[in-house]
Amino acid sequence: MPAGRRAAALALLERLEAGAPDRVDANLTDFDSDATEIILGFAFADVVSRPGIDLKTREMLTVAMLASMGTAPGQLDFHMRAAMNTGVSRQEIVEIVYQVAVYAGVPAAMNAMTSAKKAFAEAPE
Amino acid sequence: MPAGRRAAALALLERLEAGAPDRVDANLTDFDSDATEIILGFAFADVVSRPGIDLKTREMLTVAMLASMGTAPGQLDFHMRAAMNTGVSRQEIVEIVYQVAVYAGVPAAMNAMTSAKKAFAEAPE
Amino acid sequence: MPAGRRAAALALLERLEAGAPDRVDANLTDFDSDATEIILGFAFADVVSRPGIDLKTREMLTVAMLASMGTAPGQLDFHMRAAMNTGVSRQEIVEIVYQVAVYAGVPAAMNAMTSAKKAFAEAPE
Amino acid sequence: MPAGRRAAALALLERLEAGAPDRVDANLTDFDSDATEIILGFAFADVVSRPGIDLKTREMLTVAMLASMGTAPGQLDFHMRAAMNTGVSRQEIVEIVYQVAVYAGVPAAMNAMTSAKKAFAEAPE
Amino acid sequence: MPAGRRAAALALLERLEAGAPDRVDANLTDFDSDATEIILGFAFADVVSRPGIDLKTREMLTVAMLASMGTAPGQLDFHMRAAMNTGVSRQEIVEIVYQVAVYAGVPAAMNAMTSAKKAFAEAPE
Amino acid sequence: MPAGRRAAALALLERLEAGAPDRVDANLTDFDSDATEIILGFAFADVVSRPGIDLKTREMLTVAMLASMGTAPGQLDFHMRAAMNTGVSRQEIVEIVYQVAVYAGVPAAMNAMTSAKKAFAEAPE
Repeated sequence: MPAGRRAAALALLERLEAGAPDRVDANLTDFDSDATEIILGFAFADVVSRPGIDLKTREMLTVAMLASMGTAPGQLDFHMRAAMNTGVSRQEIVEIVYQVAVYAGVPAAMNAMTSAKKAFAEAPE
Repeated sequence: MPAGRRAAALALLERLEAGAPDRVDANLTDFDSDATEIILGFAFADVVSRPGIDLKTREMLTVAMLASMGTAPGQLDFHMRAAMNTGVSRQEIVEIVYQVAVYAGVPAAMNAMTSAKKAFAEAPE
Repeated sequence: MPAGRRAAALALLERLEAGAPDRVDANLTDFDSDATEIILGFAFADVVSRPGIDLKTREMLTVAMLASMGTAPGQLDFHMRAAMNTGVSRQEIVEIVYQVAVYAGVPAAMNAMTSAKKAFAEAPE
Repeated sequence: MPAGRRAAALALLERLEAGAPDRVDANLTDFDSDATEIILGFAFADVVSRPGIDLKTREMLTVAMLASMGTAPGQLDFHMRAAMNTGVSRQEIVEIVYQVAVYAGVPAAMNAMTSAKKAFAEAPE
Repeated sequence: MPAGRRAAALALLERLEAGAPDRVDANLTDFDSDATEIILGFAFADVVSRPGIDLKTREMLTVAMLASMGTAPGQLDFHMRAAMNTGVSRQEIVEIVYQVAVYAGVPAAMNAMTSAKKAFAEAPE
Repeated sequence: MPAGRRAAALALLERLEAGAPDRVDANLTDFDSDATEIILGFAFADVVSRPGIDLKTREMLTVAMLASMGTAPGQLDFHMRAAMNTGVSRQEIVEIVYQVAVYAGVPAAMNAMTSAKKAFAEAPE
């Protein structure tokens, strides 16, 4: 059962960025042998892989939350790429950045813009 | 032209909560005669009424941002209702609350849950 | 197995505040039937009931985190009481409040002081 | 020497709001006998009473900081009044609220507006 | 009329840092053709260029807000320089950093100090 | 008496990281001649060196606060090392990181994990 939770978490992560599970799992396990189960099991198996909201919309929500909190730039970079990998268009990311300016202020939006431009540059046209 | 921006902002606000424009406009104008133009003009005319993301999805984003920042409980209450008014379902709000727990922590999700339950109680079945 | 996780979470909650499990479980289940499992299962079964740090010290950490973030005053009130219920002394709470002033600023400490005084007033001498 | 620090802190507080020192000192001392010295000594004797920036401008800075962080509404209410008591005009407060919208977002500005309106209502014309 | 708003925004930006408008405008336009209008139009034309508070005091407020929120270090670096460009003295910046320690905590002040020292090093004596 | 406060602050800092006082004092004094007294005097002489909570537990609290606020990554790196220097074990740091995930969200915990791994790598086995 825990094995199923761990597998479900890594399967979701693969959808966010192809090849990420091995890297992220190794990074977490190197910290503590329970980390993948506890952290990713909660985030991706218990919550993000639930039906009810499609994965593309969930990534839009995640990008908006990370950009408005402004405290995890590395995670924002990852989810900008994940958003594009799950079908969020460049124009939709532009709109999210403007909406961040309204609800979290212009500096938060400027940081999100920088992150978005990195994801745009790495994505195939 | 400014008149158009002001009108566009209030029209968007009416879609978020029927009857809100008069109340909000009076509240802002009582503070300063330029407040509706500057604050709502930016938020609702310049940004939220743009095409590119539908209003329902925008309200999902707004709820997620306000819940994860955790600094504007009154605005969160308003946008929980506005989310339902623009077509967000109870189950979708439940999913957003769980996603807030992942990205902003359990206390932020508990606050969002309290706000959501107030909106559920006020909404027609 | 999920039943065990739910039971473990509620058992931990009982240690934080006698009688809280029924009230909190009802509040969460009224929101969504999965909420106790997802939210409390993660918080209390997966994490806070782990050995490695005793519960008293964990409550000191929780009070410090909630006070420094400053975004969940209701949860801070609960954990001030829970801290005292798990053996944190009034003097230790005073020290945490001063340390919050250093790391999160005087206003965060003033809010924590207000919350602490409510817990002091409710606690038996 | 500590007595001087405590006295300097309370003298500054009297300038922020006439009559506040007794109330605030009692509130702090009821929490811990060292609280006035540690908290107010640092805030008001060590820092805010320094020359280099006049008190009116310092209160403008404090209002802007508290409004943009958004985590201490009670302190924001106090410093809105203190700002007016030290010479900040209504129009200057209006300008600060707009600037908060730019740097911390519209919800932070709306909260600041509510706080400002309370201070305006209590102040003599 | 939009052209006037855009021009007003860039004129204000030139006062903050000579030569910045071309660089910032290119950066924003590369993201989206509306970005300069929406983001800078709001920030600099609608708000910061308003009379009622002089530009030097506005930059003091901006530095205090960015330092206390702590989520936009790049923008803080920019506005430390802009503060000096609009007449804020080194001693006034020192005072702001101390006041940040009071209202947002010592780590926020230490980050602001690092940013201030970079601006001091780049400024002509 | 001020000399005593300064000395007490630097003595506490030496316990957090051997050799840090000279470096930190020089960094602060280069900014302003009063900075060590005002900033470190408050943080380390007035608060952290108080009895009532042992230094090891205080560093656990500091790590938890900095990780949950997420706005001072450099200070978090320092206090991860200081925690280990004052007797916090690797397993205890692992537990704090998991508890940060509960109260401040997974991204805050991931940032804390990165910081912890740097401290682990630098510490003698």
